[in-house]
Amino acid sequence: MSPFDPVSLIIKKRDGGELTPDELTQLIDGYTDGQVPDYQMSSFLMAAFLRGMSDLEGFALAEAMLHSGEVLDLSDIPGTKVDKHSTGGVGDKISLILAPLVAAAGVPVPMISGRGLGHTGGTLDKLESIPGFQTDLDLDTYRRLLSEHGVVMIGQTKEVAPADKRLYALRDVTGTVEFIPFIAASIMSKKLAEGIDRLVLDVKAGRGAFMQDVESGRRLAERLTGIGEHFGCTTIALLTRMDDPLGRAIGNWLEVEESLRCLRGEHVEEVTDLTIALAAEMIVLGGAAATLDDAEVTARTLLSSGAAFEKFKEMVQAQGGDVSVIDHPERRGVADAIVDVFADEDQSGYVRSVDARAIGLAAMRLGAGRMTVEDGVDPLAGIELLKKRGEPVQPGDCLARLHTRNRELAEKFSDTVSEAFELTGEHVEPEPIVLDRLYAGKWSTG
Amino acid sequence: MSPFDPVSLIIKKRDGGELTPDELTQLIDGYTDGQVPDYQMSSFLMAAFLRGMSDLEGFALAEAMLHSGEVLDLSDIPGTKVDKHSTGGVGDKISLILAPLVAAAGVPVPMISGRGLGHTGGTLDKLESIPGFQTDLDLDTYRRLLSEHGVVMIGQTKEVAPADKRLYALRDVTGTVEFIPFIAASIMSKKLAEGIDRLVLDVKAGRGAFMQDVESGRRLAERLTGIGEHFGCTTIALLTRMDDPLGRAIGNWLEVEESLRCLRGEHVEEVTDLTIALAAEMIVLGGAAATLDDAEVTARTLLSSGAAFEKFKEMVQAQGGDVSVIDHPERRGVADAIVDVFADEDQSGYVRSVDARAIGLAAMRLGAGRMTVEDGVDPLAGIELLKKRGEPVQPGDCLARLHTRNRELAEKFSDTVSEAFELTGEHVEPEPIVLDRLYAGKWSTG
Repeated sequence: MSPFDPVSLIIKKRDGGELTPDELTQLIDGYTDGQVPDYQMSSFLMAAFLRGMSDLEGFALAEAMLHSGEVLDLSDIPGTKVDKHSTGGVGDKISLILAPLVAAAGVPVPMISGRGLGHTGGTLDKLESIPGFQTDLDLDTYRRLLSEHGVVMIGQTKEVAPADKRLYALRDVTGTVEFIPFIAASIMSKKLAEGIDRLVLDVKAGRGAFMQDVESGRRLAERLTGIGEHFGCTTIALLTRMDDPLGRAIGNWLEVEESLRCLRGEHVEEVTDLTIALAAEMIVLGGAAATLDDAEVTARTLLSSGAAFEKFKEMVQAQGGDVSVIDHPERRGVADAIVDVFADEDQSGYVRSVDARAIGLAAMRLGAGRMTVEDGVDPLAGIELLKKRGEPVQPGDCLARLHTRNRELAEKFSDTVSEAFELTGEHVEPEPIVLDRLYAGKWSTG
Repeated sequence: MSPFDPVSLIIKKRDGGELTPDELTQLIDGYTDGQVPDYQMSSFLMAAFLRGMSDLEGFALAEAMLHSGEVLDLSDIPGTKVDKHSTGGVGDKISLILAPLVAAAGVPVPMISGRGLGHTGGTLDKLESIPGFQTDLDLDTYRRLLSEHGVVMIGQTKEVAPADKRLYALRDVTGTVEFIPFIAASIMSKKLAEGIDRLVLDVKAGRGAFMQDVESGRRLAERLTGIGEHFGCTTIALLTRMDDPLGRAIGNWLEVEESLRCLRGEHVEEVTDLTIALAAEMIVLGGAAATLDDAEVTARTLLSSGAAFEKFKEMVQAQGGDVSVIDHPERRGVADAIVDVFADEDQSGYVRSVDARAIGLAAMRLGAGRMTVEDGVDPLAGIELLKKRGEPVQPGDCLARLHTRNRELAEKFSDTVSEAFELTGEHVEPEPIVLDRLYAGKWSTG
């Protein structure tokens, strides 16, 4: 290895060169141990952002970030460990249903999740709206709960991929967030450190997602699965629609309630469909079914039989949560102010779309999310959509219901929420939630 | 002015946008007062490096840097103040001759110079090889000496353009040095803060210069003069050759000696030519001659009459220097080791070129320059060229004379110096030192 000179590596990237794996490792290791200061790393990040990074550079980046901290070994726990990761959207409560469902099929699901930021929610915030539910467990407890219950859902620990944590914070304040090779290395370094064997990705595309268009979604999916395969972790990606919020509930406890309906076997449009699609992939990857069709039947049965619901309750109990609100969601109570938003005189026709970003931002401002990582969240705040894409609207119909701490706050966002509904005079064709599937470098369609 | 958000400005530049003068001012002011940390500025610098900066952005950048510190007002001192700035080369001792010469013509010359770094020398180091010569004078003394003697040569003070000092240090460690808009803003912010009325630039192009090719030299000259004109400071640029060292002496005291010969009226090839060309521009700009031809006659007369030499001595005395070594240079002594480099058996023909960069680096390593800003310099160290471009060489001829602290060090660099001489069997045509002239946005030729 040549002597380490961060400036020469910055200049190499600035001038369009490809860094070797050794060079990228030196840079990330140097950053982790303090030899490379923030101002050099941010200059490198911007150069890479504007000059691009090859697949090989992406692998090296992910590997260096992965090895910046502890890499868990779960091989002593029987079974093929499979996790799901979503790139984030509005109303995305799928993990809450999916993890116990797949575990109920006999596939161990070790899941490390994040918190919400900006317009997107986070699985941890949703779980913590269940009184008592603990997500900041140490790695020994994580391992034990996985072994005993086949499912565990915790937050990121400081031992896992610390370089990612520092790099993410730096990218956030230096205008270098929206770059696929960084996003992919960030996600995959954390996932690969979890000790999983296989991974299913829910890559969202649309105006409520990080990737605003389908093409960017495809490119991110390709990067992510490429890194997974490179490290021997079979990774399948579903490309899914995120123009409208997923389901009807946006907000932490509201989303738990919707998840519970789905877990009880009720068909919740989009939510059940996407959960079944992801579950089938995980069940096949985990070896509990031979085909996707078989796995779908298994998944539907586990929902209708109540087995998935029971596994969810078991997990809530194991992680300190109050199971009485799982059996009786009405005991959790409601927000202090609930305000309905009605269609105006000139609002009639069919809903062409509900702007997921606008709804996500409104829910955040109503208290469901956070603008900065330091903010707290209101577990009961959020938005219920009474009208969804394709449904007919007449003036005076209730479009949405806002849950928040006082009427003033709710009324401040009524217009925003109303304006998020785009109407049309024509019938709106239904669209599948799953747009495409990427496996072994090949898309099923498109 | 909109609320200040550094990240949004970084992203604007990253995505190819043009920042408004207000935005650039906010960024530079924020950096100066600590609101914008190094890691955000370095990200911005890299984005600007790769996306480019418009003329308008360049003006705003220079203005913000200029106003980050004290802007001198010399209007109470009679006369049109004219300075010269060189972008730096090897053997460039022109300022030492030019400043007293132009002052002797009645044009006040306030000159703030820098130190050598890497292969290029610095005017301050050369002046300080005169025992006792003070360059770290405060601004009151600077003003007084200019008023009394019509010439003063000092180093950069901390009051002038502090943002430039910090930005330069940051660029140096983040791979963002070689970018014409930054270079131009850095030079012009310092020069405009000096209190000058008009400026002549010596923009060097060639392998011994910062701008390695003529095209880059032209672009830098255009940026520099553009900024000068924008701020109402008439600025003329001469584009000059810097493939070979300027003159025969490289090294601090060696260059003072060569300058003294020129000041005494001896014709020192290239050195006298370039000095006269620059002096003529300054004399016309300063209003002491109507035409360049008249000004040239004036300059030549001031050299041959000894008036320029007397003005130099006056300045040395005023700034605390020992004038006896000016009258009797031999009293300054010589380096401990003087080692000649001879042409090998296979070296014969005409000198096609002497690699200025190689010679500059060798002189630095012999003690004449510094690798880092903290290093000291040896005033007597350096290289004398016994053969210059176009001169015939026979095996055994002395090519160069190395001056340094011991024979071992000299012998270590003999081969490097010998290899810097490129020979050819054919006669070499002389080339003018001044390649072109830029005035009011127009090049004289090309």
